[in-house]
Parts: sequence; structure tokens; C-alpha cells
Amino acid sequence: MERPNEVVIIGGTACGPKAGARARRCDPQARITIVEQGEDLSTATCGLPYYISGIIDSQSALVARRHDFFKDVMNMEVLTRTKALAIDREAHKVEMLNLETNQVSTIGYDKLVLATGSLPAVPDLAGRHLGGIFTLTKLKDANAIRNLISPPEIKKAVIIGAGLISLEMAEAFVSQGLEVTVVEALDWVLPALLDFEVAAYIEKHLRAKSVNLLLGQRVIRFEGDGNGWVRRVITEDAELEANLVLLALGTRPNTSLAQDAGLTIGSTGGIAVNQYLQTSEPDIYAGGDCVENVNRITQQKMLAPLGSTANKHGRVIGTNVTGGCETFPGVLGTTIAKVFDYNVARVGLSELQAREAGYNVVTCLVPGYEHATYYPKGKEILVKLVAEKSSNRLLGGQVVGPGETAKRVDVLATALTFGATVDDLANLDLAYAPPYSSAMDPVHNAANVIRNKQSGYAKALTPMEVKNKLESGDDFILLDVRSPGEWDTCRLEATQAKLLPLRELRARLNELPKDAEIVAFCQTSVRAYQAQRILEGAGFKRIKFMEGSIAAWPYEIYGKANYSSSSWR
Amino acid sequence: MERPNEVVIIGGTACGPKAGARARRCDPQARITIVEQGEDLSTATCGLPYYISGIIDSQSALVARRHDFFKDVMNMEVLTRTKALAIDREAHKVEMLNLETNQVSTIGYDKLVLATGSLPAVPDLAGRHLGGIFTLTKLKDANAIRNLISPPEIKKAVIIGAGLISLEMAEAFVSQGLEVTVVEALDWVLPALLDFEVAAYIEKHLRAKSVNLLLGQRVIRFEGDGNGWVRRVITEDAELEANLVLLALGTRPNTSLAQDAGLTIGSTGGIAVNQYLQTSEPDIYAGGDCVENVNRITQQKMLAPLGSTANKHGRVIGTNVTGGCETFPGVLGTTIAKVFDYNVARVGLSELQAREAGYNVVTCLVPGYEHATYYPKGKEILVKLVAEKSSNRLLGGQVVGPGETAKRVDVLATALTFGATVDDLANLDLAYAPPYSSAMDPVHNAANVIRNKQSGYAKALTPMEVKNKLESGDDFILLDVRSPGEWDTCRLEATQAKLLPLRELRARLNELPKDAEIVAFCQTSVRAYQAQRILEGAGFKRIKFMEGSIAAWPYEIYGKANYSSSSWR
Repeated sequence: MERPNEVVIIGGTACGPKAGARARRCDPQARITIVEQGEDLSTATCGLPYYISGIIDSQSALVARRHDFFKDVMNMEVLTRTKALAIDREAHKVEMLNLETNQVSTIGYDKLVLATGSLPAVPDLAGRHLGGIFTLTKLKDANAIRNLISPPEIKKAVIIGAGLISLEMAEAFVSQGLEVTVVEALDWVLPALLDFEVAAYIEKHLRAKSVNLLLGQRVIRFEGDGNGWVRRVITEDAELEANLVLLALGTRPNTSLAQDAGLTIGSTGGIAVNQYLQTSEPDIYAGGDCVENVNRITQQKMLAPLGSTANKHGRVIGTNVTGGCETFPGVLGTTIAKVFDYNVARVGLSELQAREAGYNVVTCLVPGYEHATYYPKGKEILVKLVAEKSSNRLLGGQVVGPGETAKRVDVLATALTFGATVDDLANLDLAYAPPYSSAMDPVHNAANVIRNKQSGYAKALTPMEVKNKLESGDDFILLDVRSPGEWDTCRLEATQAKLLPLRELRARLNELPKDAEIVAFCQTSVRAYQAQRILEGAGFKRIKFMEGSIAAWPYEIYGKANYSSSSWR
Repeated sequence: MERPNEVVIIGGTACGPKAGARARRCDPQARITIVEQGEDLSTATCGLPYYISGIIDSQSALVARRHDFFKDVMNMEVLTRTKALAIDREAHKVEMLNLETNQVSTIGYDKLVLATGSLPAVPDLAGRHLGGIFTLTKLKDANAIRNLISPPEIKKAVIIGAGLISLEMAEAFVSQGLEVTVVEALDWVLPALLDFEVAAYIEKHLRAKSVNLLLGQRVIRFEGDGNGWVRRVITEDAELEANLVLLALGTRPNTSLAQDAGLTIGSTGGIAVNQYLQTSEPDIYAGGDCVENVNRITQQKMLAPLGSTANKHGRVIGTNVTGGCETFPGVLGTTIAKVFDYNVARVGLSELQAREAGYNVVTCLVPGYEHATYYPKGKEILVKLVAEKSSNRLLGGQVVGPGETAKRVDVLATALTFGATVDDLANLDLAYAPPYSSAMDPVHNAANVIRNKQSGYAKALTPMEVKNKLESGDDFILLDVRSPGEWDTCRLEATQAKLLPLRELRARLNELPKDAEIVAFCQTSVRAYQAQRILEGAGFKRIKFMEGSIAAWPYEIYGKANYSSSSWR
């Protein structure tokens, strides 16, 4: 009888158990062992913010499968509380430490799977080891935070970093009655994911939810009380009282085992793998947060520490360690997070990332509604697309707001997978009925705005460009083409501002000097673009519209910006 | 000075106004005239069911833009209450009748746009002209229905046909306190859109909402009272009392004007157009419900009478009648409807359509959850995919249920646009966070089920095949691998049924005869597939699992099928 294939998996969170389960289904005879430092397998770490907020009430809900499932159903050997110490590539052996008994043992493998995950990035700052300073990657972190914030006198939380977990945790802390300050070294929230103006749209919402944002500020040190508990966060400009500090500066791949074994580590810091998810040693596979991925747009390497990617890796690895041949095609940096009442989603390259990667880009910034405007309770979304100027090829998208955004970003992700152009996007046959979308979805409209720019019909300035012109005191007309009622509700306060409703524009053309530079705006830019075309048709030469208009204006505004503009039709 | 381009548009609902607006933005100097029989332009006819249900409370909400908008802003000539009588292709003229004054006039065109829409299909049945029998395509139909049902004594509505509008209207009528019967000649609801087992899943929901379904029955005639009002609907097998009858048998393209002008009509009954949406006469364009479209999968012609398609047509036509050159690539038959608490969506070819088109197919039927199971309030969805067996190419998808389905179908629509395979689908980098999806989305899981079938790992029977085996009294074991608690809650009653929980399967293999035919099932098929692989690994040769299991079982069941199965993990 043939000797069974020996598969050893190190790491039991997402990629590891998935690889094991898939390997078992592919090869009923394989001997599969899973080695995990912690007590549980298949912990849903993505759910930790919701466990802290109380939306998920029991920690058992976060453990997807109990040990005995892996033993009884999957016929795997499960070694929890066991730490892999070293890999002997030559002998195909792993040295392990039982954390309960402190005994060291070895296990042989034919195929080894590294699913060692990631570690929280921790800044080297004075006071970093004070009590009350946390990272959040494990259930025990979440339990410690829950315990600390349960007494009502714990009132002030400071979150360092403004990434996804930071903002999810801001919501969790606010829901638990804490005052929350987020400190971010860069100039806007979610800087690795969003462009400035899209982030600014979310910042308004965070501030409306009482989150204090300190942007463009570095933390200098933490100060504690006599008992060794944190009491203050000192930044470049501020001293913040704090009963709790969350370090949410992202993660880095946990590669020490791989590195010690001499496996190749990529320039991103993740374990280098090929399309079969093999490391530089063909009998050792790696997946999940510890590896680097291929960006399907740029073909560059990138990190993508997400449960979704880890699970897909697991299936590929499970297939391949049992004699199959499956490939993993890479990732798009697709990301979504619930940030209070906003759905924040993005995919591909941001404008900043695209420019840094050397693309000549064309973008759009398009407000829209999640479904037909006449169907009640529709909520706003804001769509930014980034495309390559020379080819119209989509490079990325950001879709955020109180309305539905997951669908739009998943459509963009699917389109990006196949190298779609904005022309392709504009004619996608997406599902339409009034409760779900408009006849022209915001994705279609956004694609068409880029096409209108490319064809020379639409001439736009970004809100940032308009702001610069206002601040430089430029001589131009900032033409508000909304209705007088909308003007009364809110407006951009500037000496250059002039109200001339779109409906009256053709009749009152003589009020505008033909040679003036004019920038039209409205609520969402639909009317402003129309105004641009009317004025150009009438012989005006220096006319543009402001993209996104009031709905996407990232700065202060006079009055209430989020009003319904349906009355103007 | 050059003579302006004369553009005449016939039809003012969706494609026509869109074409006009686009033409205006492309050509400020064109003379654009829009000719419409009714009183309003841009009526949102897709909203009519919601206007009748009261979700949309005012009819003005359904008129997207008033006349003066088209005149003042778009600088178009708007001729409402005007009927186009005939086209003189030679002279480039249209003869029109003013329905107010009964005056006939002519208008010349350089480019003519036919956006004449569709007409309700009406059966030639006795009693068809009785009062209280309606079709629903216009605001005045909706107002007449609203008026009729407002007195509380109007209690019984019969809907003929079980298409999209039928089911939307069933919900509207039930919400207004009516008893509703839907009569359908074919054997399941939404027969043009869904396969039997997916439709059956929706039929359970309709019945739970007190909708009476008479399937596989033709209507013979209508009977009225002495005042000429409908009182009874006589079908092959039943006599139904009725105070109101809605004829919802779909629509047919309104092509009489085109036909009289000698333009080519396609075999589908729609006006034939090329990719530029030109008819057989190059100066006449056509779009919206009156034309036929190219199915992007089969490249066959099909009808696609939807506001979404009409709007896209409008943009293409508006570009092309003003000297541009844009193409319309075709449609995928993407459709969505809210049916009470279910979101019913589909795209591409159903299994039936694919087989009729000659494809050798592989399918899957996969229940899943809209988001992470541990995040609260997740609702179920059911995914059916259809792929080409030889190539793994996706051909279509049906996604239905109380959970989110629009996103999944839009992802499939985007994938179909680019000829994606199920392998492509399985590795799509879709947006993942617990409130929005699972790490492996139901789309991924469904794609992987097909891949598992193709690779020979998964061996499945459909619920219909299992039902047939049960009814034929086949000698096999219907192996329920759920927990005893689940068995107590609901089960398939059959002499062949045997409970053997997955967790105990490996230990109790000796209870199963090695040579027996075994069909495993559970709640969603995840455990059943696992059981299949365990039994095969143990040397069993005749083992399959039932796709969709209890969640997708389209027949009677003993007990309550919709329980949470999270306890089994």
C-alpha cells in the first residue's frame, strides 16, 4: 500500500483550515496535521470590532468550527497551543513546541503549508507598554478591550492610525459611549485606500458622529499614571487624555519561520510565492496574510491581508498539496468597511496610486442615488472612477456613502478582472428595478462622465481645483445653477459666486460676459454639465463645471449640504 | 451658415427623451423635436406597481421631468398629445395628428428616432372588454386601478400571467388588502426567467404571503355582471371570483409605424437595428422597447423591454444622430424584481434556455447567506449557476431569496459580459467585510461547486432527481447527515430516509452497506458534499449528494424548513 501524503499546515485562522479541508476533500487518504499557537481554529478575526461593539454578542459566534469538527469530520490532527519553531527543509521536518507542556517534538511532511498570518504593526514609542494600550488581532485582545471599557468611567479612547480597523473601532467605541479621537500621520483617513476628496466625504460623517479627527499628526509618546496605565497621548500638536489607546497601524506579514528557513521574502515583506502559491521551496506552500500577492492591474507585488484572500489561497493550496494544479490569479485591493452609517468601498488603484504607478489618468467624481430617485428612502452614494487616459481602461474605483456601495464596487472589481474600459462599463446590462437601482446606475453615469471628458464634451474642475482658485482670488464666475430655494438652503460663500438657475440660463445669457471664465456647479453636477454645454453652445469659450458639485464638496459649506434636490426637476 | 441638423424623435418615455437630451449635449445647434401621444414625457412606468401599492404616494413623482424642462433647458420642441401617423422615407417627413385639435401636419427630419415602446399583450378571450379588466403600462392604467380598488368592498383580484409585473402587482394588491390569485399557463412562475426549482422557491414565499397560484392553467373566458363589470375568471379547472383582473402577459414591440414605413422587422417582432441602432433605413434610428437586441451570450436576437436598456439605447442614438459613432453591444437578459420580501434576480441563460440553445451544461444549486453567518440578521439566498460543460464558461445565473441578490447578479452580469468561466468567478476579488458578505461569497461557493463537479469530486443529484427516485420507489438510502435536533425540526419523509449525523459518520460507517446507493443531504449541501467525500474515501462507490438540500427542496417538507442551521458547527 502506498504511503499516505503527509500534509502539515502551520496556522489555524483562515487559510490553514481552508487548505486542510480542501486537501481532505481532494485526498481522503492524506494525513493532515494543523498546528496552531492559539486555542481555537477558524477564528473570525474580521468580526472582532462587532464583538466589541456588542453587535455580535458571544465570542463563540466568532469561532466558526470547533476542534472536534476538524478531527471527527475532517479527520485531521489538530495541534493547538503548539508553536512551530523551525523548518528543516532538507529533512522535511518541522520542530514544534507544545505551549502547555513545553515539550519539543518534530513532525515530518511531504507538503508543508505556511499560513502564519500577520502581526500588528507597533510603533516604537515611549510608553508603548503601558496598560490600556492595545492592538486588535485576536479574540483575547477583544476580550481585554471589552473588559476595560465595560465600567462606565472609561470614557476616552484614542485610536492611532485611520485605517479600516481604526474606523470600525471608532464606531464600536462610540456605540459603547466612549469619546473617540483618531490620530493619523497622513492628511486624510484611509490614506492607503482613498483619495483625499473621497476621504473628506467620510470625514464629514465621522465628525457628525462625534469622532474627533487629528489628521497629519504624528504621535510622540504615551504617558501613564502611577499604576502603569495610559493616561495621555502626546502628538506633535496636542495632548489627548486617554483611558484606552488602540494601535491600529495595520499589520505586517508574519514571516519569521519562513525567513529562518531561508525561504524567499518579497520586497513587500510577504513570503514570495508563485501562482501555485509555492514558496521558493517547492514542497512548501504559503497563503493568507503572510504572503505577497500579485496586483492584477499593475502586475506588481502587494500585500492583501484579508480573510477573503486567505480563503481563496486555502482552496488553491489544498488542491495543490494533494496533487492538483490550481493557480491563484492575484488581487485587486478590493476593500469594504462599514463606517457608522456609511458603506466605504474601493477597488483597484486610487488616483494617487495610479499616478504613482506612472499612469496618465482621467477620473470622475459623481454623486448618485442607490436606487430610483422616485422610490422612497434612497440614499446617496459618491462614485470616483480612475481610468487610463490613453486607453479608457478602468484602473480603480471608490464608492462611498450612506447608500449601497458593495454592489457597485463588486461590479467594478469584476470589470477590472477582465481589463474593462469605461466604454464597457457604460453598457453593462446591470439589474434594474426601482427598489434596487436607477435605469442608469451611478456606475453607468460615472463611466459616461469619463467618456464625456474624453470626447471633449465635459470640461471639469475638481472641487480642490475650484477651492484653489477661490483661495487665490482668481477672477472668475462660480456659477450656481441651482434653484433659489436650494441657494437659500446652502451655498458656497464666495465673492465669485453668482446664482443663475439652469432653467433661466438660456433666457439670461446676456447677464454673463462672453469672455469670462465660468465654473458652473449645482447639487450633483448634472445641471452644471448641462450649463457648460449650453454656454459653450452659445459661444462661451472658458466654461467648465465642478465635478461632484455640492454633494462632493469636501470643505466647509454655508448651510445644510445634504438636502434633497429632487424639487429642481 | 450651415442648416442645423433636424432630429425628430417619436416617443417620449425613456429612450426618446434620453436620445434628445444626449443629442442636445452633443450638438447645441441641432433642431430637436419630440413627439409623444400622451400628456407627459419621461414617465417612470417601472414605478407603477409601487404607485398602486402606495409606496410611491404621488403620481408627480413618476414624471421625471416636466415639459418646460425640455423646452427651457434642452431647447427641444415638445409635441405632446401628438400621434405620428406615417413616415415618408423618401421625403424624410413624418405625418402627425394633434390629438387635441385633430389637425394633421408634417415635420421634416434629417435623422428620425423611433422610440415607440411596447404594447401590452392582450389575449383574445371572451369577455376581455368587461369593465375591471386592465393592462398596466401607463399612468392612466395605474390611476384607474387605484380608483377601482380604493373602496374596501373590492376584494378579489385575479392576475393573468406570472411574469415580473404580475408578481410585483400581486404584492401591491395584497398590500391594499385584496385577495390575489395568479393564473399562469406554464408550470411555474416567471417561466421566461427562472428554472423550475428556483421558481418553486419563490412560489413557497408567494403562498406564504397568501397569494393563490394556479399554475399550468389557461384562462378560458371572463364573465361579467349586468353592468358590464368583470365578476368571474373561468380557467380550464376553476371558476374564480374577481372584482378586478390584471392582464399581465408581457408586452410586444410597438412597430406599426416602422412596419408601415417598410422598415425591417426582426424575427422576434422587434424593429431590426444594427450596432449603431440604425434601422434598415440609415437615417432612421430606433431604440427602447420597440427594437430587438443582441443577446451577448448566444449572439441571437431577443427582446429586452426594460428602462435600463432604453436609456442606454437613448445615449447611443443621441450620439449617432448628431454625427457621433457609438455602438450598443447588446444585452444579457438581466432582470430583478422585488417579490414581497424576496429579491428575485437572474441574468443570461436559464438552464432550460441554455439547453434549448444547444449548450451542454453543468449547473449548481447553492444556498448561502447574504453576509457572514456570525454577523446578525443575515438572510438566505439561493444561487443557481449554469455553465458550459466543455469550457467552464458561465452562461447564466439565478439568485433569489430574502437576502441580497442584486449584487450577486450584477457581478454575474459583469462576468458574462467578458465571457468569464466559473474558474474566473471563483477567484474574483469581491469586497469582503462581515456586514456585506462572507469571506467566500455565495458566488464563489457556487462557482466552486461547479468546479468540484467538473473535476469529479462532487457528484450531485438535483432535488427533482431525488424526488423522482422517491416516487419511483427506488431502493436507495436518503442519508440525512444533519443533527438529530434538525431532524426533529423538519425532515424529508420517506421510507428511504435515514439519519446519520456528519459528525458521527466516520465512526458509524458500518451501519451503511458498502454497495448501497446513497444520496446524502443536509440543510445547504455543505455537509452532504462532505459526507459524499467521506464515504467515497471509505470505499463506497454509489454515493451522491442532493444539491441545495433542504434549503432548496422545492416540494412539501415535514416541519419548518427555514430554521437556522448554525448550531451544527
